[in-house]
Amino acid sequence: MSSKKILGYATKGVGQPLEPITYAPPKLGQHDVRVSVTHCGVCHTDIHAIDDYYGITAFPFVPGHEIVGHVSAVGKAVSDLNVGDRVGIGWQGRSCMKCEWCLQGEDQLCLDIVESGTWVPYGGFSSSVIADNRFVYPLPDSMPSEVAAVLLCAGITVYSPLRLYATEEKQKIGIIGIGGLGHLALQFARALDYEVTAFSSSPEKEKEALDFGADHFIVSTDEAILREAMLSFDLLLCTSSHKIKWDLLLNILKKKGRFVLVGFPDIEFNSTELVARQLSITGSFLGNRATMQEMFSFALTHSIAPKVELMPMTKVNEAIRRVKENKARYRIVLFNDTADTGA
Amino acid sequence: MSSKKILGYATKGVGQPLEPITYAPPKLGQHDVRVSVTHCGVCHTDIHAIDDYYGITAFPFVPGHEIVGHVSAVGKAVSDLNVGDRVGIGWQGRSCMKCEWCLQGEDQLCLDIVESGTWVPYGGFSSSVIADNRFVYPLPDSMPSEVAAVLLCAGITVYSPLRLYATEEKQKIGIIGIGGLGHLALQFARALDYEVTAFSSSPEKEKEALDFGADHFIVSTDEAILREAMLSFDLLLCTSSHKIKWDLLLNILKKKGRFVLVGFPDIEFNSTELVARQLSITGSFLGNRATMQEMFSFALTHSIAPKVELMPMTKVNEAIRRVKENKARYRIVLFNDTADTGA
Repeated sequence: MSSKKILGYATKGVGQPLEPITYAPPKLGQHDVRVSVTHCGVCHTDIHAIDDYYGITAFPFVPGHEIVGHVSAVGKAVSDLNVGDRVGIGWQGRSCMKCEWCLQGEDQLCLDIVESGTWVPYGGFSSSVIADNRFVYPLPDSMPSEVAAVLLCAGITVYSPLRLYATEEKQKIGIIGIGGLGHLALQFARALDYEVTAFSSSPEKEKEALDFGADHFIVSTDEAILREAMLSFDLLLCTSSHKIKWDLLLNILKKKGRFVLVGFPDIEFNSTELVARQLSITGSFLGNRATMQEMFSFALTHSIAPKVELMPMTKVNEAIRRVKENKARYRIVLFNDTADTGA
Repeated sequence: MSSKKILGYATKGVGQPLEPITYAPPKLGQHDVRVSVTHCGVCHTDIHAIDDYYGITAFPFVPGHEIVGHVSAVGKAVSDLNVGDRVGIGWQGRSCMKCEWCLQGEDQLCLDIVESGTWVPYGGFSSSVIADNRFVYPLPDSMPSEVAAVLLCAGITVYSPLRLYATEEKQKIGIIGIGGLGHLALQFARALDYEVTAFSSSPEKEKEALDFGADHFIVSTDEAILREAMLSFDLLLCTSSHKIKWDLLLNILKKKGRFVLVGFPDIEFNSTELVARQLSITGSFLGNRATMQEMFSFALTHSIAPKVELMPMTKVNEAIRRVKENKARYRIVLFNDTADTGA
């Protein structure tokens, strides 16, 4: 193990700005890989964690879970990765590999996930991270690092439920919230050959939404248009964590339709119509490793890529502010000025 | 068509007591069957309709949709039913037979259901009703009429989702709300060989719940016990329309677990855990005709029967009061004093 200190950007308390800290490189387990970080995307859940929204953040906390870099060291049991390989790591850096969910290949549901599967306390807004090699993905040569970074969390989060729940051809799919996740969901849904409608509270996003692949655009605050769309959609994928008009949105689902949540809005409505129409509300969380590999291949084949603003990691607080203010179009990826500053 | 007037018990305005009225027999369509009512169960949704909870009640309104009686006349196109046959009719007396849902055999989702599928304005709290013969079920000789009556709505409402969503053997199932629907759900779930837990806010129902087939009983207001049961259940079937503790109840579902609603409680919680655990909330409404036939056969084979209080139809207001006050144990069925008072 290198003894070189890691440079990370940490928040020292709830909601505090990030500041540079240094820390000793975590011990490399036999299944682990050390990765020198070149790129790391900024995700809303980083900000949730900084704000301790989930009530589990340990401070000092280094966020960042859309990580791309080069392998700088491998543990004794690692055979498939070598020093120098360009790789990606998403939100999940480990799993217990033995609970009922890991055994089913649904590692994202690992019962031990909070303890072993997250970037607490040291994530990718840093010079170097470690992760279990089984959650470290070799990247296609032709895929830019900032593209891969965003696919590792935003991408898998929307690709997995689209593949799982929108199985029939030509289904009518609505994507609610056209931001970091939504603009990728539009591209995936179009490439999967669905009829895609973008829902956004920002009318100015219409042209870009159509460019990303939407067949239609609906301003999600326009109640009259929502009422007209009654019983139209097979599936709605909600990427927003903001307050949404539940009654109106459920109303546009066909009977037996499904409303998939990947964001975390409050849910608040009376269930009568949910029952009478046999609707479902389903949460979807990341995706498993098999789906992650499939997604990279699919994205490459269909030229799916996030629209990215690149910023140096030294400007992490400015990046976070832009995300908070809903100004990022559509995802910010931080990069380290030197390709290998880490351990 | 007989010209004999029908005697029905109608509410003339929102929330008003029922009073006897007479009306001309509805015209018998070629696919229709006229049924002289002997029994009709009292369901919570009758009371909802009297109170115009759904905003669609047309007054005067004769409730009643768990109907058993004898065929008194058949339309020209009816070949499978004959005058004198003992039959049952549930909430759905018709469908359009041609929409996308009817074509899939999911007639309970018929797009025309409000207009043609309900008992507006003339239901089974009466001497006689008509329905499309395709929604009129011949009853097994050995099944008492009051048993069949309750199965036609309360029974199918819980049997259908149990068959649909609890498909693997020995799954852990929770039934929330041990009333007219719940006490049947316990019996069905036990006969389907699941591990069944009854949830009720009434501790005094424990012994009966165990007698109905529950393996375990949990007082649903006991937060400590609910916390202990975290990640335990594959499926929760909620028959209650009262306020429920969403966070605590979702917490006891295993990851990927499903919360099925057949009652109409308000839904109110933040969706973070729903997402992280990939839970689903699904509404279930009645069941299709194939499932109705299967249920009658299953109930007969497994000796499943509601616990019924029989009351004469003249006491309909007293029956409604008992249901409203949560005193019925567990379902009230009204009977007509004379077997054939109708048209």
